[in-house]
Amino acid sequence: MTSFPTLNPPIRTLLGPGPSDIHPRVLQAIGKNTVGHLDPYYLQLMDASQQMLRSLFRTENRMTFSVSATGSAGMEATVVNLIEPDDSMVVCVNGVFGTRMCDVAERAGAKVTKVDRPWGEVFAPEDLVDVLTKTQPKVVGIVMAETSTGAWQPIEEIAKIVHDAGAMLLVDAVTALGGVPVEVDKWGIDAIYSGSQKCLSCPPGLAPVSFNDRAMETILSRKTKVQSWYLDVTMLANYWGSDRVYHHTAPINMSYALYEALQIIHEEGLESCFARHRMNHEALKAGLGALGIEYTAQVGHQLPMLNAVRIPDGVDDARIRGDLLNRFGIEIGAGLGVFKGKVWRVGLMGYGSRAANVLLLLSALEQLLAEQGYKFDHGASIAAATSRYSQNS
Amino acid sequence: MTSFPTLNPPIRTLLGPGPSDIHPRVLQAIGKNTVGHLDPYYLQLMDASQQMLRSLFRTENRMTFSVSATGSAGMEATVVNLIEPDDSMVVCVNGVFGTRMCDVAERAGAKVTKVDRPWGEVFAPEDLVDVLTKTQPKVVGIVMAETSTGAWQPIEEIAKIVHDAGAMLLVDAVTALGGVPVEVDKWGIDAIYSGSQKCLSCPPGLAPVSFNDRAMETILSRKTKVQSWYLDVTMLANYWGSDRVYHHTAPINMSYALYEALQIIHEEGLESCFARHRMNHEALKAGLGALGIEYTAQVGHQLPMLNAVRIPDGVDDARIRGDLLNRFGIEIGAGLGVFKGKVWRVGLMGYGSRAANVLLLLSALEQLLAEQGYKFDHGASIAAATSRYSQNS
Repeated sequence: MTSFPTLNPPIRTLLGPGPSDIHPRVLQAIGKNTVGHLDPYYLQLMDASQQMLRSLFRTENRMTFSVSATGSAGMEATVVNLIEPDDSMVVCVNGVFGTRMCDVAERAGAKVTKVDRPWGEVFAPEDLVDVLTKTQPKVVGIVMAETSTGAWQPIEEIAKIVHDAGAMLLVDAVTALGGVPVEVDKWGIDAIYSGSQKCLSCPPGLAPVSFNDRAMETILSRKTKVQSWYLDVTMLANYWGSDRVYHHTAPINMSYALYEALQIIHEEGLESCFARHRMNHEALKAGLGALGIEYTAQVGHQLPMLNAVRIPDGVDDARIRGDLLNRFGIEIGAGLGVFKGKVWRVGLMGYGSRAANVLLLLSALEQLLAEQGYKFDHGASIAAATSRYSQNS
Repeated sequence: MTSFPTLNPPIRTLLGPGPSDIHPRVLQAIGKNTVGHLDPYYLQLMDASQQMLRSLFRTENRMTFSVSATGSAGMEATVVNLIEPDDSMVVCVNGVFGTRMCDVAERAGAKVTKVDRPWGEVFAPEDLVDVLTKTQPKVVGIVMAETSTGAWQPIEEIAKIVHDAGAMLLVDAVTALGGVPVEVDKWGIDAIYSGSQKCLSCPPGLAPVSFNDRAMETILSRKTKVQSWYLDVTMLANYWGSDRVYHHTAPINMSYALYEALQIIHEEGLESCFARHRMNHEALKAGLGALGIEYTAQVGHQLPMLNAVRIPDGVDDARIRGDLLNRFGIEIGAGLGVFKGKVWRVGLMGYGSRAANVLLLLSALEQLLAEQGYKFDHGASIAAATSRYSQNS
């Protein structure tokens, strides 16, 4: 028989679009001894995780829990529960994940109307006026933190116009949650999903979601069954609710990891956590600016945890990313879709959002850019970043 | 803010229907440092895992990989890829998981014809003759190891009659894989799914699946898109194939766990692994027999890894299971559906299938049954089990 190498993953600093650097406590938690999915201990853990998720989403929604699959399944879970065949849905598209949401919604039988904005830009409420009047959608989907472009979409004003039109608002918060404020109740978000592997610093594998009462009433009065058995919230409610009716076997160890990750955020406090993401983003931005590297997202709407920047002319994209990985152990993300070869995506998410990582990346980048003959003032990026940090101390 | 308790799961011996006892090496593997889902190291790991899964399924199928969700999502993945709206599908139902497959298939738009057998019994090829002629199905679904009843369904003869009728055979091997021989190529199984948390001794969270060329040709020539974006094999093929096209963020640490679990099986060798499952089952059965406890599945078709037994009259089901858990740290499974309150399900799966566990369970059960006034010869179950072990040594 062939023999396979011992599992021995290289040590990486994960500064890509996710998975982010995992907190060491989370890696310890995920390896703790497994209990059954109906064990009284596990049921307590589910309750506590739900409470922590509610405080993270800033919601009282009873149906706040984690879907047993990755963030994209969170997207699918929210869409297929809300949508019945021939329902009208509007999707705001300014990057890869809005595009994906259209695909998911069409597969659920929705009549999808796309509203487009250029990649890197965000939507204003007035962009939706016509389409809301014309299509009278049941659901409007929008991405709060577009991981492909680094654009930070304001939600509150969009929520108002969507509700005024009688529609429900579905928000993609995969990259947003835990990095910037997400106010489910205050903004009136009807359904929302995220992923464990971004600002929660937990391995990929779970998708936190939340549905408000309006969404749940809509789901519970569906005429057709939810097309996905695995993602059917009407059944999942009986497992996550007090009845604990067996549905599927929950991913126990992933739940341990999420529990620990939520604890860590809880201990730090949400406001401190957001401030830290903002600070490290500003330092990185100052440093990259000193190298003449610019952000792709429109000014005033740049995400702190996902820094999408234009690759300078004449610089070899693949070589820089390869050298960062192989010589420094640093992963950053390539551009997706129309940004392929033109954009780098630097994640400063959760535990990865640290001054040490900002300085390491800038130093490594200086060295590699110099090797490629790119001209800049050596040390300038570090000076700019540390100066930005000093202003805050 | 409320404070939440430190994660500190109780130590359990998991002898229920899954999750099974996790091998300590697997718990170490799952906590190793996370790399990115497009990291060259991770891509190598995917290749090696696919090779090991192929040898476990005994197949050359290129499309052999793990779905990024639990076993039930494996069921959904195989069904929604093979089925288009209005396709005819036959499902063999003799327990909970056949029933579930009907539900999943109906949600995918299949015209489902159910063939029933009493719980605990298995299907003979002749049970399918009429329905195959009458409904001319595209797909026939059957459960190889019905976890709700402990019945072991022979597949080879069923496969022949299904193929003679021009249909494809879809097999649920969630509990079977790694515990009894599963011969995908030899038997001509067209699509199959399993789960990580049974005989692979890995935490729940991944669903190994395999599709043969005929299944893949059918999927690639669909008239409609697969209804689930997340489970769409046509896209997953581009991530698991040589192109490595980004689809969703793979659950890295769960993949580490599966890799290690597959290594362990690979090292033991499949035949030894099956023999071990058989031996421990026979010892447990001898022991339970000495206590007058009988199996629910028909004679000659009792699964070695899932021992479903009738609760003796006058014995308090919930109290026994509660005492096993709270006083001995042993989890066994309750009955499901029509077997609720009537049946216990004892899993001897993967790493959990050990003589030490058999003897521990029998001893604990003797004590608890005695406390409830149940009459039997004290020590008889241990004598019977050890005697069975000695015959083999």
